[in-house]
Amino acid sequence: MAKGVVQVNLGTVFVSELVGTAMLVLLGCGVVANVALIKTKGYEGGFLMVNVGWGLAVFAGVIVSYASGAHINPAVTLGLALNGGVAGNTEFVPGIPIDFLSILVYILAQMIGAILGAVFVWLAYKQHFDQEPDPGAKLGVFSTGPAIRSYGWNFVTEVIGTFVLVFVIIGFTNGGTPAELGAIPVAFLVLVIGTSLGGPTGYAINPARDLGPRIAHAFLPIHGKGSSDWAYSWVPVFGPVAGGLLAGLAAVPLLPILA
Amino acid sequence: MAKGVVQVNLGTVFVSELVGTAMLVLLGCGVVANVALIKTKGYEGGFLMVNVGWGLAVFAGVIVSYASGAHINPAVTLGLALNGGVAGNTEFVPGIPIDFLSILVYILAQMIGAILGAVFVWLAYKQHFDQEPDPGAKLGVFSTGPAIRSYGWNFVTEVIGTFVLVFVIIGFTNGGTPAELGAIPVAFLVLVIGTSLGGPTGYAINPARDLGPRIAHAFLPIHGKGSSDWAYSWVPVFGPVAGGLLAGLAAVPLLPILA
Amino acid sequence: MAKGVVQVNLGTVFVSELVGTAMLVLLGCGVVANVALIKTKGYEGGFLMVNVGWGLAVFAGVIVSYASGAHINPAVTLGLALNGGVAGNTEFVPGIPIDFLSILVYILAQMIGAILGAVFVWLAYKQHFDQEPDPGAKLGVFSTGPAIRSYGWNFVTEVIGTFVLVFVIIGFTNGGTPAELGAIPVAFLVLVIGTSLGGPTGYAINPARDLGPRIAHAFLPIHGKGSSDWAYSWVPVFGPVAGGLLAGLAAVPLLPILA
Amino acid sequence: MAKGVVQVNLGTVFVSELVGTAMLVLLGCGVVANVALIKTKGYEGGFLMVNVGWGLAVFAGVIVSYASGAHINPAVTLGLALNGGVAGNTEFVPGIPIDFLSILVYILAQMIGAILGAVFVWLAYKQHFDQEPDPGAKLGVFSTGPAIRSYGWNFVTEVIGTFVLVFVIIGFTNGGTPAELGAIPVAFLVLVIGTSLGGPTGYAINPARDLGPRIAHAFLPIHGKGSSDWAYSWVPVFGPVAGGLLAGLAAVPLLPILA
Repeated sequence: MAKGVVQVNLGTVFVSELVGTAMLVLLGCGVVANVALIKTKGYEGGFLMVNVGWGLAVFAGVIVSYASGAHINPAVTLGLALNGGVAGNTEFVPGIPIDFLSILVYILAQMIGAILGAVFVWLAYKQHFDQEPDPGAKLGVFSTGPAIRSYGWNFVTEVIGTFVLVFVIIGFTNGGTPAELGAIPVAFLVLVIGTSLGGPTGYAINPARDLGPRIAHAFLPIHGKGSSDWAYSWVPVFGPVAGGLLAGLAAVPLLPILA
Repeated sequence: MAKGVVQVNLGTVFVSELVGTAMLVLLGCGVVANVALIKTKGYEGGFLMVNVGWGLAVFAGVIVSYASGAHINPAVTLGLALNGGVAGNTEFVPGIPIDFLSILVYILAQMIGAILGAVFVWLAYKQHFDQEPDPGAKLGVFSTGPAIRSYGWNFVTEVIGTFVLVFVIIGFTNGGTPAELGAIPVAFLVLVIGTSLGGPTGYAINPARDLGPRIAHAFLPIHGKGSSDWAYSWVPVFGPVAGGLLAGLAAVPLLPILA
Repeated sequence: MAKGVVQVNLGTVFVSELVGTAMLVLLGCGVVANVALIKTKGYEGGFLMVNVGWGLAVFAGVIVSYASGAHINPAVTLGLALNGGVAGNTEFVPGIPIDFLSILVYILAQMIGAILGAVFVWLAYKQHFDQEPDPGAKLGVFSTGPAIRSYGWNFVTEVIGTFVLVFVIIGFTNGGTPAELGAIPVAFLVLVIGTSLGGPTGYAINPARDLGPRIAHAFLPIHGKGSSDWAYSWVPVFGPVAGGLLAGLAAVPLLPILA
Repeated sequence: MAKGVVQVNLGTVFVSELVGTAMLVLLGCGVVANVALIKTKGYEGGFLMVNVGWGLAVFAGVIVSYASGAHINPAVTLGLALNGGVAGNTEFVPGIPIDFLSILVYILAQMIGAILGAVFVWLAYKQHFDQEPDPGAKLGVFSTGPAIRSYGWNFVTEVIGTFVLVFVIIGFTNGGTPAELGAIPVAFLVLVIGTSLGGPTGYAINPARDLGPRIAHAFLPIHGKGSSDWAYSWVPVFGPVAGGLLAGLAAVPLLPILA
C-alpha cells in the first residue's frame, strides 16, 4: 500500500518499480505463452483471454508497487513528468521530485524488471518453448508485432492506445499516479485498451514491457528461436512515449475543466 | 472526479461530455473493429469480447466525464431531464439547470465527441479498413445494424435495452447520474445489456454512439466503403430516446418506493 | 439503495421484489436467447457468456430491489426465513417481520416479476423466436432443462448449487440479505455457481426464475413452440427450495463460528 | 466477516478453513467438470472459463472463511508462517499464535475441506462421471496434471505460480492474510495466475486443492475411473510449498521497502 505520510526515496522507487514491472511482464507475457505455445492448457484460448491476462497482470503489478505510485511503464512516467512540469507539480510521490535523476531511476528499474519478468516466463514455460516449432510464436510471447506491418500506422495505433491509458490515469487522479486510480480500475482500463485498440499491434503501450522482453529474447538461450525483429522494435518504444507525452500535454488545459 | 461543491458551468459540461463520449466511442467501436476487420489480433473474438469492450468503454468514458455527471448518451440526458422535470429536480449537476439550453449542450457535445471518437477508431485501424473487403463489416464498426431487419421490432428491442440502462441508473441513484452510480457499476450494466439484449440489434442504446459514427462513416474517405444505411439510422436514435424517456417516466412513481 | 433507517412496508416489498425479479429474468433469460436463438449477434457465444449474463443480471436485479433486501429468489427468502426463525431473527428488513404473510408477499412478487421479465425477453427477441425452428431452443430461453435427464441427480445438483448461493449470502452477512452482501459480490457468486455447478442442469437455483418463465412460455403465443416440459418443472422448484432451506439450517450452528 | 476485535480460537480456525476450502474445491473442481466431462452445458467452454471459475471459487472460499484469515491453502499458511517467524509476527490472526499446532490445524482443516469439496463435485456431476468414457478427463476434474510431463520443470512452474500468489498477498497486506487483501482482489489474482502461469501444469498452487481431491478420487466409487497418478502427486504439493516459503522469505527484506 502507499506509504501514506512516510516519504519514499529513490531506492524505494527502484525496488518498487522493478518488482512491479517484473510482476506485470511475468503475468502479461505469461498469458501470451499460454495462448500461443504448443501443448499448453490455454492453447488458442482467444484474444479476450489475452486481454484479461494482461489487464490483471497490471492489477498485480500495481498492487506490489504502490510505494512508488505504480508507474511500471516509462510512458506513464514521462507523461506524468511532462504534465507535472507544465502544470507545476514538483513530485511524483511525496519525497521524489520530478527531475532527470528520478525519471532515470523509474525507467531503469522498469527495464530491469521487465527483463527479469521475461526470464521467469521462459522458465515457467520452458518445455513449451522447447517443443514449439514456430520461432514467430516464441518471439510473440516476449514482444509485440504488427498484424499488418506498416511502421507509420503501427506507430499511430500505439500513440492512440497509450494516450488513452495515460490520459485516463491523469484525468481521473488530477495529475496523480496509477496507484491513486487503484489497481482494479487500471486493470480494467488496460483490459479495454487491449480489446479495443489491440487489434493492429498487440498493444505494447509500454516501452519497458516491449523492449525489456525483446532484450531477454535476444540473450536467452531459447531453443530454435529466430530473429528478435529489431527493425520493428522502435515502434512499441517511441509510439507509447509519444502517446504518453501527448496525454500529459493534453491534460494540462483539460484537467482544470474535467477534474 | 466530481467537482464536489464546486459548481460547474456549461463550458465544463461541453468539454466533459465531448471527451467522455469520444473515449466511449473510440473504445467501443474499437472492439468491433478488432473483432470484425480482417487480419486483426482479435479477429472473430466472439460477442462476449465485444460486450466486455463496450462495457469497459463506458467505464473509461464515465471516468473522464465525472464533472458533468457522465451522461455521454442523449437517452440518459433526456431520461434524467424528463424524470427531473416531473419529479421536481431542477439541476443535472450543481450549477446546471435542467432546461432546453443545457440539454442542447449535453447532446451537442455527445454528438461531436462520438464523431471524433469514430475518426480515431478509423485511424487506429487504418490498415485493416484498407484491406477488409466487406463494406458491411466496415459500417458495422461505426454503427449498429439489425440481425433481422424489421424496423418495428428492432425499435422495440432498442426501447427495452435503453429502458434498462436508464431505469437502473435513475433507480439506483434516486434520480442521479451515471457518475453517481459509479464507473464500474455502469460498465457492468452496459456489459449485461449487451450480453442479454444485444442479440437482435447490436444494442445502440445511445443515439450519439450510433448516429455520430454513422456521420463519420459518411464523410470519412474509407477505402471501399459502402452505404451508411441511413434507412435504418432512425431506429438506434429514436428507440433509445423512447426507452430513456419511458424509464424517466416510470421512475417517477417507482422511485419513492424503491430508493 | 437501502432505505436506511426508514422502515419499509409490504407494499414496498412487493414492488421492489417484482421489479428486481423482472430485471433479473429479462437480462438472464435474455442472454440465453442471445446464445440459443438463430441469427442473433451472440449466437453460440459460449457458456461463459451465459454465466456472465446471468451473473450480471443478478447484479442489475439486486440494484433495483435494495429496499426489500433484494431476495429476488424464493429459495433465498425461505432460507433466510428458516435461518432467522431458528436463530431468533424476527425481521427480513426493518419493518418486515418474518412471518407467513411476508413470505407470501415476497414469493408472489418474485413470481409475477419473473413472468413479466420473460414476456419482455420474448418481445425483445420476437423475430428470432419466429424464425428459430427448434422448439427446444425456445423453451431453453425460458426455463432450465437437464443435460442428462435424471430427476434424482438433477435434484441433487440444484440442491448443491442453491446451498452455495444461500449459504455464502447468509454466511457473509451474518444472517442478512443479498443487498447487504452487495450487488457485485452476489453477481460474482452467481457467475461462479454457473461456471462450476451449472453443467448438469443449467442452474435454476431459483424457483421463480424457472417456474415464472415456464408459465410465460405456456401462455404466450410463441410461434412454433413445443412442450413446456412440466414433467421436469418440479426439479428446479423444489431442488432450490431444499438447497435454500438446508443452507439456512446449516448456517445456524456455523454462523456463530464463521461470522 | 472478520471477527474484528473478538479473538478466535483453534476450533474456529478449523471450521473456517474446512468450510472455506470445501467451497473453493467444490466450485473450482466444479468448473473443470463442466468443461471436461461429456454432455455438460459448459463442455469445451475454454480455458478462460476455467480461470474465471477457479478465480471466483477463491472469492467464495475467502468470503466464508474470513474468521481464520481465509488461507484455504497450505502454501499460504506456510508462507505466512515463515514470513511471520523471520519478521517477528507472532499471530496468524488475533488469538492464533504462529506455532506448530496452529499450522497443523490450518492444514488439516484445509485437507479435510478439500476432500469434502471434491465429494460434492462428484455428486453434482454424478451422471456425467458415469457417462464420460475417458478416465483421464475424470481425474482431471479432481487433480492437476502436466501438459508436458517433466517433474523438474513442472515443479518450477508451480513454484513460480505460487510465489506470485503468496508474494502479492503478503506484499499488499504487509504480512497479512488473504482476508485482508479481500475476496475480490484475491480472486483476480488467482484468475490471472491461471490465465498466465496455468498453461504448463494447470496451476495447482495449493497442495490441499490438489492432494485432497486426489485422495477423494482414489477412494470414491467413480464409474470407470483410472489411475490417480500418484507418481505426479508430489509436484503439486511440494512445488506450491516451495513457492509459498520462497515468497514468505523474499518478503522479509522487501516488505519494509514496498509496503
